[in-house]
Amino acid sequence: MIKSIQLNQAYRLLNHGPTILVSARHNSKQNIMAAAWACALDFDPPKITVVIDKSAYTRELIEASGTFAINVPCVAQVDIVRKVGTTSGRDLADTDKFAQYGLETFSATEIDAPLLKGCVAWLECKLIPEPQNQKTYDLFIAEVVAAQADERVFSDGRWHFEGFDNLRNIHHVAGGTFFATGEAIKSTI
Amino acid sequence: MIKSIQLNQAYRLLNHGPTILVSARHNSKQNIMAAAWACALDFDPPKITVVIDKSAYTRELIEASGTFAINVPCVAQVDIVRKVGTTSGRDLADTDKFAQYGLETFSATEIDAPLLKGCVAWLECKLIPEPQNQKTYDLFIAEVVAAQADERVFSDGRWHFEGFDNLRNIHHVAGGTFFATGEAIKSTI
Repeated sequence: MIKSIQLNQAYRLLNHGPTILVSARHNSKQNIMAAAWACALDFDPPKITVVIDKSAYTRELIEASGTFAINVPCVAQVDIVRKVGTTSGRDLADTDKFAQYGLETFSATEIDAPLLKGCVAWLECKLIPEPQNQKTYDLFIAEVVAAQADERVFSDGRWHFEGFDNLRNIHHVAGGTFFATGEAIKSTI
Repeated sequence: MIKSIQLNQAYRLLNHGPTILVSARHNSKQNIMAAAWACALDFDPPKITVVIDKSAYTRELIEASGTFAINVPCVAQVDIVRKVGTTSGRDLADTDKFAQYGLETFSATEIDAPLLKGCVAWLECKLIPEPQNQKTYDLFIAEVVAAQADERVFSDGRWHFEGFDNLRNIHHVAGGTFFATGEAIKSTI
């Protein structure tokens, strides 16, 4: 049901601007956070940008491990996204957000990071260190080294949500309000 | 009908990841192009990132003028977006895409750039020169110095598309296929 995506099509997982979850692991510590400010940066090899605040615990894990995963969540997960987006893993003693909120994960293929079950796409990323961007803008650049998607809604290089309303992506506006990804529209030219 | 937006709320015009149009003017030359890879970068003062290929004529105008506008288009403009996204202003002799395609504009308030009528939001941007990002990644960083929106669909700091299906934003996937912005969803926590 989860299929590997050709790297030159990985940008399509983010091209429509969904809100995503960033997960990372370093040694035995792991965390996951929400980020609306993630964006494709290049096609092949695929690169992405993501903005991660200095206060984020996930940022520490990314800077220590040099890797992270982008999890693309869906309508069914809107409360989970809000929960991991409004709490800090740093505040949890002897546990992490996954255990705290009962979130199941599976292993990434090319990096050491937890991938969140129930999401509909995953991009495994290796940080391209750009200290000036990270320090000045909280802006991280990474290369996507592996990508997977739930084939019910993404296959042959395109999203197709028909019949799977709850697996559509979500786009955060502010304060826990999101837009679902809407219907497909084709230009006539 | 078009209202000025408080700068600390300007990020909300892009937070849900719409595909946008970038317009710029330098001396008597002007151009407009489509870009799916635009993203908020900071809240206040608001900053944004946008990826603009080295081959883009609009990029020349931005690098010369130091300014550009982000126009947020809507469902009704899907063919216009495709048209300005698949042609180059450099190929047009003695004219520009606006004249060629009958596109009406109005003046920006803080910069010299054409704003496209029929869009539903506009962000006026001043380039923050980062030569390394521009050269290596085609990545441009800018500060938003003014923002406006069509009050039928954006007011009091939020989008509300109910009753205005054709004014919803569009999210490019690939090859002229877009998703419309879908219905609002609120987390329960």
